[in-house]
Amino acid sequence: MTLLSSTSNKHVKDFKALQEKSRFRKSELRFTVEGVREMSIALKAGYHLEKLFVQPELNDLSSIEFPKAYPYEHFEVEPKVYQHMAYRASTEGIVGVFKQKKHDPQHVAITSDKNLLVLVLENIEKPGNLGAIFRTADAAKVDMVCLANCSTDLYNPNCIRSSLGCCLSVPSIAGSNEEIREWLHAHNVRSYAATLQNSNPYFQEDFKTSTAFVMGSEANGLSSFWRDESSASIVIPMQGLIDSMNVSVATAILTFEALRQRNAR
Amino acid sequence: MTLLSSTSNKHVKDFKALQEKSRFRKSELRFTVEGVREMSIALKAGYHLEKLFVQPELNDLSSIEFPKAYPYEHFEVEPKVYQHMAYRASTEGIVGVFKQKKHDPQHVAITSDKNLLVLVLENIEKPGNLGAIFRTADAAKVDMVCLANCSTDLYNPNCIRSSLGCCLSVPSIAGSNEEIREWLHAHNVRSYAATLQNSNPYFQEDFKTSTAFVMGSEANGLSSFWRDESSASIVIPMQGLIDSMNVSVATAILTFEALRQRNAR
Repeated sequence: MTLLSSTSNKHVKDFKALQEKSRFRKSELRFTVEGVREMSIALKAGYHLEKLFVQPELNDLSSIEFPKAYPYEHFEVEPKVYQHMAYRASTEGIVGVFKQKKHDPQHVAITSDKNLLVLVLENIEKPGNLGAIFRTADAAKVDMVCLANCSTDLYNPNCIRSSLGCCLSVPSIAGSNEEIREWLHAHNVRSYAATLQNSNPYFQEDFKTSTAFVMGSEANGLSSFWRDESSASIVIPMQGLIDSMNVSVATAILTFEALRQRNAR
Repeated sequence: MTLLSSTSNKHVKDFKALQEKSRFRKSELRFTVEGVREMSIALKAGYHLEKLFVQPELNDLSSIEFPKAYPYEHFEVEPKVYQHMAYRASTEGIVGVFKQKKHDPQHVAITSDKNLLVLVLENIEKPGNLGAIFRTADAAKVDMVCLANCSTDLYNPNCIRSSLGCCLSVPSIAGSNEEIREWLHAHNVRSYAATLQNSNPYFQEDFKTSTAFVMGSEANGLSSFWRDESSASIVIPMQGLIDSMNVSVATAILTFEALRQRNAR
């Protein structure tokens, strides 16, 4: 075990670059995880740990099952170094670097013949919204979250944080609109474009067979691609002064309506 | 019209105190509003404007209907003063001070005999969550939002912002748990405590008659008061790694299930 006492140490600098820069994450295919719960979820989800940084005074690591099957680098860091590395105010004294997984639509298939529940997110921009949707997807046991033309990556620290780590445990793929459409076709999933008007109320549709809800960006809604290519359009009727809904709230309403229908006696 | 060129002007200082300090809002019974949409909603909702601050270069006020029935103070502010006063990064050049309304449960009654849809929020702490719930309440035309033992006030700027102003337009009362219970009884509203376990799935209940969903705080859930005093308990079944749900997401799922039932053919 090595003790790190300087914020200019190369490992610390690399960590900060992965934490802060989407491009660096993309080129290195690595990402950072902070906190006991998030670390546990990343390991349970099969992510490969490369570097572990611990401020020994701060944490109780007994609840985490660290990998035994492969080696990883283990550093102790001094408090001022940890403060520099940590992203959150309330700190738990543990951060790490993991390898990313592949999210290529052509190489991630579901072989089960159950009725799937899928979310397609077109260009969701705010990592906090993306994370909130993953948290809902975890609760609803969504089978696949598809990031379509999404500029925000799921390894964004804000996404990991607001999903409580669930963006690492819920299966996901990322690709172009065309690639995601192909994946839906290959899996025989009926897709519903969530719109703001001129559509059927969502509760008049039947979501018991394999279903994808296609959600647009906070600012612009869905592109014409998905409005044209989806199997049907649905609307959540709104009766108030504001004519739009938070995308994570809308996603939750639709997702849990599908579950309700599938559970109805 | 007066031109304000200094951040140490008394009007500017009072504005900042109202914006930043919950206690000052409470003692003065005033609050601040920022932005064209929020200003419009406050005026439409009948809030009394006392002071208007405008940075003339920045905004187009033609969409706002300013009060003609009573006088208010109107200031122009220099850019550096506006930057000091504004709360948001993307600024619209308009802020104001309004009088608060009364939210006393004993003096706010609903006389309509329709079936009510009510939310009871016990000690919601994060203004962002409170605002998100008001945004949902607007979309669902909720009849009353009841803040029970709530330390966060609905005039918190973060609440106004994340509700897009809807915390000003959706009817609300604030009081102790006992006072809110009395209000529910007086209005013959059946209350459902949202719990995390050992309850009926929400979709097995009938929400067509007057219904209140009782939601607990982010950290602690519902107190024993509401678990004991509610008419029934319900749970949103969760199947994932995380055993809790964001309170604004949970509120939306329940609220829209009630609407679905009431709209079902």
